[in-house]
Amino acid sequence: MDWLKEKISPPSQDYYQRALKRQSELTKPPGALGVLEEIAVRLAAMQGTDSPEAEHVWISVFAADHGVAEESVSAFPQSVTAEMVKNFASGGAAISVLARQVNATLEIVDTGILRPVLSPEIINNRAGAATASFLQQKAMSKVQLNIAIEAGKMAIERALNKGAQIYIGGEMGIGNTTSASACASVILDIDPIDIAGAGTGLDAAGISRKVELIKQAIKKHSQDLDDPLSVLECLGGFEIAALVGAFLYAAQHQLPVVVDGFIATVASLVVVKIQPEALAWFFYAHCSAEKGHQLILKALSVIPILDLNMRLGEGSGAAVVVPLIRAACALHNQMATFDQAKVSTG
Amino acid sequence: MDWLKEKISPPSQDYYQRALKRQSELTKPPGALGVLEEIAVRLAAMQGTDSPEAEHVWISVFAADHGVAEESVSAFPQSVTAEMVKNFASGGAAISVLARQVNATLEIVDTGILRPVLSPEIINNRAGAATASFLQQKAMSKVQLNIAIEAGKMAIERALNKGAQIYIGGEMGIGNTTSASACASVILDIDPIDIAGAGTGLDAAGISRKVELIKQAIKKHSQDLDDPLSVLECLGGFEIAALVGAFLYAAQHQLPVVVDGFIATVASLVVVKIQPEALAWFFYAHCSAEKGHQLILKALSVIPILDLNMRLGEGSGAAVVVPLIRAACALHNQMATFDQAKVSTG
Repeated sequence: MDWLKEKISPPSQDYYQRALKRQSELTKPPGALGVLEEIAVRLAAMQGTDSPEAEHVWISVFAADHGVAEESVSAFPQSVTAEMVKNFASGGAAISVLARQVNATLEIVDTGILRPVLSPEIINNRAGAATASFLQQKAMSKVQLNIAIEAGKMAIERALNKGAQIYIGGEMGIGNTTSASACASVILDIDPIDIAGAGTGLDAAGISRKVELIKQAIKKHSQDLDDPLSVLECLGGFEIAALVGAFLYAAQHQLPVVVDGFIATVASLVVVKIQPEALAWFFYAHCSAEKGHQLILKALSVIPILDLNMRLGEGSGAAVVVPLIRAACALHNQMATFDQAKVSTG
Repeated sequence: MDWLKEKISPPSQDYYQRALKRQSELTKPPGALGVLEEIAVRLAAMQGTDSPEAEHVWISVFAADHGVAEESVSAFPQSVTAEMVKNFASGGAAISVLARQVNATLEIVDTGILRPVLSPEIINNRAGAATASFLQQKAMSKVQLNIAIEAGKMAIERALNKGAQIYIGGEMGIGNTTSASACASVILDIDPIDIAGAGTGLDAAGISRKVELIKQAIKKHSQDLDDPLSVLECLGGFEIAALVGAFLYAAQHQLPVVVDGFIATVASLVVVKIQPEALAWFFYAHCSAEKGHQLILKALSVIPILDLNMRLGEGSGAAVVVPLIRAACALHNQMATFDQAKVSTG
């Protein structure tokens, strides 16, 4: 796992400046396209080009089960993880629809659901049959952690091989907002009560119970939570670890990432704690309705592009942003300059 | 102009309820797609269908000049209106790029720029050669107001004839945030200082001057501002009046409208003051960076879909929303239900 330490280069300052200059020459008041200008300029810098593009989008959805799901931390039974994996594969899930809609490649990676689903559509990178309940023991062993992180790395290798220009990592795993909330609470040193939310739809009593379980878990593992990878080992999930591997390897290989909602943002937080330079390669898609998301975005000092009250995961919020990124690129690349259009400047 | 009083029917309550029911059966936690669910459900009700669609999008950009532009209320010279109209026609403006990007029909309607631009690409519905300065006299005569409103009605007739499913009205006119701010101040009885903003890029001194001019104009015409149409006559612009005609006629003919930013929202406010039922046919695209926009949205009790710090006009913010509406429709129409996908419910 030595690659985790490989250096991350910053996006090109040269192309950043060139893109800023071009934006100032386009036929519009300076800054009038707002966030769309920022997206185009950042993407030009990341891709090292004058003509940023987001045509080839690669989406991996990592799925895994969670031992802690036995503790009734979700509004849905644990069986839903595997059932939704089948739904992804057969094209009926939200991310399946959105991937078709934006013409993105969608792959489903089993990183450790309880019982494997037999389908040629599903990539088998299983680190186990669900994590252990972190109330009893560490969620996963070091070996399992490595397998899950490598699953993310391999997804980026596939994406890069096929010429992906934008990467989206999604997740599915009943119980994973509990696991992600626990990780974020430890890393940011914030009381779980400020992070843990309704997930798939817990009521107030359910959320209280979830908070208590997270507190117990953090207490139980308190001697072993020194660094981001140990936090993942004790409290994480296989799909969260896979997202960590994917986002880190993507940043190392200069592949821009659109980070989805709560779970994906926690994974990005782990990555930024390992290598702060990774942040420059991330767009944050949307502010989730999940309680702790805003706090974590704030801790990262990032402003998400959308705020649509979504809270589904799967990469769905990030997929919704793809057409906006493409619009930003089209405006940057195709608008006439004041000179070209013979429009007077202010 | 008797058609202005023709009744507006509400969207179908029946299809609204059917759409809500379908959303509750799709494989996701209830409400997890947030605003995308609301968009799909509202559009299904407007279109009276179980399968809402936003494939055929019609964009009209209405252009006109403003007498008040002589008072240096813009960061750009008045000649820019005509120059930008040429830029629209030749495909180099932001709205030209965005219309291509979302495969929408784009038409440019001259409702009264200073000197007409000769081009077969531009529809001639001129109500005059710029409005009069509302500091001297009413911005337009009743006859001119009618011509401008009819220009909007005719745009909707063209859109309906070609099967448009979504209508976007954009505008171009140096000085038009001054005119629109004046109209909104009167209609909402709000001090111009809380409405008037930087427009294309005024500095603080410029904004102060703009506020003073608006105050003078409101005082000058105070005896003639009894109803929304008189406000348009005294303080409006031809392109704003055209948007009013378009939005009202669209609502009467059950064509859903995506309202763009500041100017278009003021036009929609005028329409809602004429017939409050029109509001049910409007989506609000985005919160503009223009100062008064939030206040006006609040007065209408509407929440816009995006907040991207845009402030360009032309219909650009509404065009950026089109792929989100299409995503909302695709999710609504194509996602599997819990039954179909054999996914357990909570």
